[in-house]
Amino acid sequence: MTTKKKVAPVAGIIMGSKSDWPTMEAAAKTLDEFGVAYEVEVVSAHRTPDKMMRYAESAKARGLRAIIAGAGGAAHLPGMVASKTTVPVLGIPVKSRALNGLDSLLSIAQMPAGVPVATFAIGEAGARNAALFLVSMLAAHDETLAKKIELFRSKQTKTVLKGPDPRK
Amino acid sequence: MTTKKKVAPVAGIIMGSKSDWPTMEAAAKTLDEFGVAYEVEVVSAHRTPDKMMRYAESAKARGLRAIIAGAGGAAHLPGMVASKTTVPVLGIPVKSRALNGLDSLLSIAQMPAGVPVATFAIGEAGARNAALFLVSMLAAHDETLAKKIELFRSKQTKTVLKGPDPRK
Amino acid sequence: MTTKKKVAPVAGIIMGSKSDWPTMEAAAKTLDEFGVAYEVEVVSAHRTPDKMMRYAESAKARGLRAIIAGAGGAAHLPGMVASKTTVPVLGIPVKSRALNGLDSLLSIAQMPAGVPVATFAIGEAGARNAALFLVSMLAAHDETLAKKIELFRSKQTKTVLKGPDPRK
Amino acid sequence: MTTKKKVAPVAGIIMGSKSDWPTMEAAAKTLDEFGVAYEVEVVSAHRTPDKMMRYAESAKARGLRAIIAGAGGAAHLPGMVASKTTVPVLGIPVKSRALNGLDSLLSIAQMPAGVPVATFAIGEAGARNAALFLVSMLAAHDETLAKKIELFRSKQTKTVLKGPDPRK
Amino acid sequence: MTTKKKVAPVAGIIMGSKSDWPTMEAAAKTLDEFGVAYEVEVVSAHRTPDKMMRYAESAKARGLRAIIAGAGGAAHLPGMVASKTTVPVLGIPVKSRALNGLDSLLSIAQMPAGVPVATFAIGEAGARNAALFLVSMLAAHDETLAKKIELFRSKQTKTVLKGPDPRK
Amino acid sequence: MTTKKKVAPVAGIIMGSKSDWPTMEAAAKTLDEFGVAYEVEVVSAHRTPDKMMRYAESAKARGLRAIIAGAGGAAHLPGMVASKTTVPVLGIPVKSRALNGLDSLLSIAQMPAGVPVATFAIGEAGARNAALFLVSMLAAHDETLAKKIELFRSKQTKTVLKGPDPRK
Amino acid sequence: MTTKKKVAPVAGIIMGSKSDWPTMEAAAKTLDEFGVAYEVEVVSAHRTPDKMMRYAESAKARGLRAIIAGAGGAAHLPGMVASKTTVPVLGIPVKSRALNGLDSLLSIAQMPAGVPVATFAIGEAGARNAALFLVSMLAAHDETLAKKIELFRSKQTKTVLKGPDPRK
Amino acid sequence: MTTKKKVAPVAGIIMGSKSDWPTMEAAAKTLDEFGVAYEVEVVSAHRTPDKMMRYAESAKARGLRAIIAGAGGAAHLPGMVASKTTVPVLGIPVKSRALNGLDSLLSIAQMPAGVPVATFAIGEAGARNAALFLVSMLAAHDETLAKKIELFRSKQTKTVLKGPDPRK
Repeated sequence: MTTKKKVAPVAGIIMGSKSDWPTMEAAAKTLDEFGVAYEVEVVSAHRTPDKMMRYAESAKARGLRAIIAGAGGAAHLPGMVASKTTVPVLGIPVKSRALNGLDSLLSIAQMPAGVPVATFAIGEAGARNAALFLVSMLAAHDETLAKKIELFRSKQTKTVLKGPDPRK
Repeated sequence: MTTKKKVAPVAGIIMGSKSDWPTMEAAAKTLDEFGVAYEVEVVSAHRTPDKMMRYAESAKARGLRAIIAGAGGAAHLPGMVASKTTVPVLGIPVKSRALNGLDSLLSIAQMPAGVPVATFAIGEAGARNAALFLVSMLAAHDETLAKKIELFRSKQTKTVLKGPDPRK
Repeated sequence: MTTKKKVAPVAGIIMGSKSDWPTMEAAAKTLDEFGVAYEVEVVSAHRTPDKMMRYAESAKARGLRAIIAGAGGAAHLPGMVASKTTVPVLGIPVKSRALNGLDSLLSIAQMPAGVPVATFAIGEAGARNAALFLVSMLAAHDETLAKKIELFRSKQTKTVLKGPDPRK
Repeated sequence: MTTKKKVAPVAGIIMGSKSDWPTMEAAAKTLDEFGVAYEVEVVSAHRTPDKMMRYAESAKARGLRAIIAGAGGAAHLPGMVASKTTVPVLGIPVKSRALNGLDSLLSIAQMPAGVPVATFAIGEAGARNAALFLVSMLAAHDETLAKKIELFRSKQTKTVLKGPDPRK
Repeated sequence: MTTKKKVAPVAGIIMGSKSDWPTMEAAAKTLDEFGVAYEVEVVSAHRTPDKMMRYAESAKARGLRAIIAGAGGAAHLPGMVASKTTVPVLGIPVKSRALNGLDSLLSIAQMPAGVPVATFAIGEAGARNAALFLVSMLAAHDETLAKKIELFRSKQTKTVLKGPDPRK
Repeated sequence: MTTKKKVAPVAGIIMGSKSDWPTMEAAAKTLDEFGVAYEVEVVSAHRTPDKMMRYAESAKARGLRAIIAGAGGAAHLPGMVASKTTVPVLGIPVKSRALNGLDSLLSIAQMPAGVPVATFAIGEAGARNAALFLVSMLAAHDETLAKKIELFRSKQTKTVLKGPDPRK
Repeated sequence: MTTKKKVAPVAGIIMGSKSDWPTMEAAAKTLDEFGVAYEVEVVSAHRTPDKMMRYAESAKARGLRAIIAGAGGAAHLPGMVASKTTVPVLGIPVKSRALNGLDSLLSIAQMPAGVPVATFAIGEAGARNAALFLVSMLAAHDETLAKKIELFRSKQTKTVLKGPDPRK
Repeated sequence: MTTKKKVAPVAGIIMGSKSDWPTMEAAAKTLDEFGVAYEVEVVSAHRTPDKMMRYAESAKARGLRAIIAGAGGAAHLPGMVASKTTVPVLGIPVKSRALNGLDSLLSIAQMPAGVPVATFAIGEAGARNAALFLVSMLAAHDETLAKKIELFRSKQTKTVLKGPDPRK
């Protein structure tokens, strides 16, 4: 058990399958950078629907401020978690074998009115951005995080500005 | 309550929204043609997840032999029902407003290994075919239905064969 | 000036063109339902880039807790606003004339790592869901909103549960 | 000749080309797990149309309860087999070289009203799911299979629930 | 029976459904313009597979020099006819309801090596072009047709060259 | 100069770039199998437009019975050759780097009414099938070829029929 | 003959068919706004290939500084004109009947290295933008145009800035 | 510092990320071939928006005659640069990881009326063609370049004409 779990997690990172971890790891690493406590679990909409329902139902009471959910193909996890909680759900379309994540993207983004899921880009970029988005959400009531995210952004900008000539 | 319900239904026709009925009606009419008793309900994966779970969980005990589930956009209903029952689920991608049902089709068809959904064509053709498929399933242990479906097919063939010259 | 503006807005609803209003209105109406104060403006990434930059830059100081940005086609508004603020940006792909919003969806969702935009469904459903998502975000520190959103969800569920037989 | 053939097969696994076997093998292995007797054949819609017609025509009399048919590209096998039998046909879109199976999926799923094909996901996941779907169909009149499929599902759920932390 | 049938037809125009006639009529009218005798029939791959097989099998002996086959959705007719004859088959993807003919196009064009189908554009343009292509084929051994097709082309060119200013 | 050129070629195999040869080689090999004399040239619509125009213009007089033209991306070669000759043009969409040949397929297939191009599948299968189609065209007035193509088909069928169990 | 033609045209607006005029008119009107002299012609790549070649070949000598070429479907006009001139070619994908201009866009944009075509958006927006782009090109050596285009841009910005509240 | 920078650059080659250089290098090399002075910079729309705005704003005064801008995914760089300058912007869709550049292409090409971006093909071919297009633009007022581009074209044609038999 890592120190990340000692502090009550404010975010959940869940994914439909262990094989989604290389994608979702980008979210975890980003939350690590910002010192946001999180938990990580495999929660499969299709293979563990009851766990998924309980996970979603208990999310608010357990203090989660957001759930980052990644899935590929017929990616139902983010939408179904969102159906059972008002905790904000951030969906990550995992790149799928045949259709490269276009199916995942549409399955997550095209939610009907009434139950929102915030969708991010296919793959690692999406996972990293969901974590950054979460930090921005939390920053509204957390001065330390607010400073960190501003600092992150300005560092990111400087890294590009001071980057080497692309030709070298 | 119609006479259809007096006989215990062997099939469920469910849909994510009342607005899916014009599509799903093709399944109902087809089951009517074959005298297969069915029930019809709006069961929304996202707006009534608990009902959906109970519906799926109780399907087998209630005697359902198959569930025909229609949904559009991020169409999670068929896959989620399938996650909670081993009763065969037949999924109908309803034509969606922006993407014409391509999103519905991918959301239903691209299920991960372990939890099957049988997918049919986008729209009414798919709804009718799901019902025909169900009749074929039932026909394996129902001589009357077996004759009816053979008769249906041969009539269908004759209708085309004896059809008027398309130029008229 | 409407009464909505008398209270300092906590959300901005912006759109690339006045013609996006029929889509974005769904976000405004939803915030009205929840009593969340917001401002509405046409901010075009391409035709008013400076205004867009100032809008984004000043968003945090002006007290905005989120920006709901809608755009169609090469939909750059959400991503560019996000590049200039750490206030969470919720992007709405407006249905486009030729490609039905697939271009809008990809232009908004496929952001590179480092600058997040939360994307919602193409069209009105997406606009409504972005507003609901925003309410959920705010509800973390606002008990009244937290109750309202829970109530909204349970009413929404009841409406479906008590809905008429779809056949009628 | 393997022992699988000593018992009269209740399922046919057919494919348009020997090169589809790595995909279709997932269906065969799944039926093996459940002890469902099946036969395997290459039946090409385009290169052996007469065999295909005879295969389909004789399927019912030979006792087949379902036919799992895989094909790629202009994937006509499942639909054409379905045109000649009322035995349920389960179609598997094999991943194609240029278009990754999108062509296969549309060629199989978009059947016209009157002749149903149940379509599953592109590739191995689809093949495995077709076999699981078939087991569910058979389970309606086979208590042993009914128990096996319930057991399979609960084991599958447990495997996910007890799975290792994805981070390890 | 029209005079077109008094001369033995050298071309067959077939279609999966009477509803395809508005598209296929463009092929018929074009053959009329060139005085090429043809027959017209509804031949459904899925609803009249035996007729289709007989139609294809007898095509050569009946003197057909080409078959123009139109179908929509999972458009199997052209490919299946081609599987049963070496008479050249010209396939017309009919515009489909949900996917606008993209499914029809891929179902016809993506034939595997060994059984060719010549595919033309989606809809009426494709039907007209298939007929023109057929005329070009026949023209190799028919001086009259050779002159007619050259004349057609030069007239077509002149019509454009002498066309009115598009602004009027 | 190979012996293939000693006999006056009846077919032209042209391609937009030398890099298309691995695809187009399948057409050449197929014509070799059938003893159809052909010529091979790189003719680029965009880099050698005048040569292309002359090639097309002179095709008939030079005795070509058909032109097999392959190109990728914005694949204009088949359509432009067709604009300058009434010799039948068979178009092969070469698989493109970014879009896998979907661009090539649409650029070749979606010709406007008036100038036909017969399109075949993306890649080698399409090239082989174009050659087989050409053989069928020629077979109408060439008994030897007619026998060869029938023999080819029956051998092809037998190869599949006698093929090994796919499981081995 | 309008006064627009009295001044030697510096731009050509060409289109594959008179039916493309409603789209291309946006380019003409834009050039009118800026006082740029242009000519308008229907030039069909497929139906008038020789005219197209001459048009392209003579463009430079006739003083054209750019050619705005619109076409739909297998849209070869812009690319073929570009193959015969070094005058900059601006391509407009016209919305097509079946595929809404996706085919047109790919046929124009995916040109191979060596022969450039500048592609703009599908439909009227693209036609207007091509004209604006042309004005920017000319403005480099035309102070009056340079002022006009800057003025146009600032007016466009002001129109948005002073636009009415979108809610009214 | 290379000699390329000693001469005031007339073109800017910018890209959203250093990782776009392998694509954009094709533009640089092409400008080298023609002796057109250019500058190269990483300018990220999302990570360095202020730099991007300044870059665009100062482009004209700094003497740039065109800006070649490459970006992938939600590719906003070309459109946003165009929003801040009337200097012609040439956009290059860089091939993206998941969707192969289709997202990049639509994000760049589908600009709204009023702010033009000239789009070129996905990847290296597009980068090279943008540079060639720029040379053609400059050639209108530069006799040396005009000769060079004509020479380039005729050499390119000759290279194809004299190319080896593709079979060798």
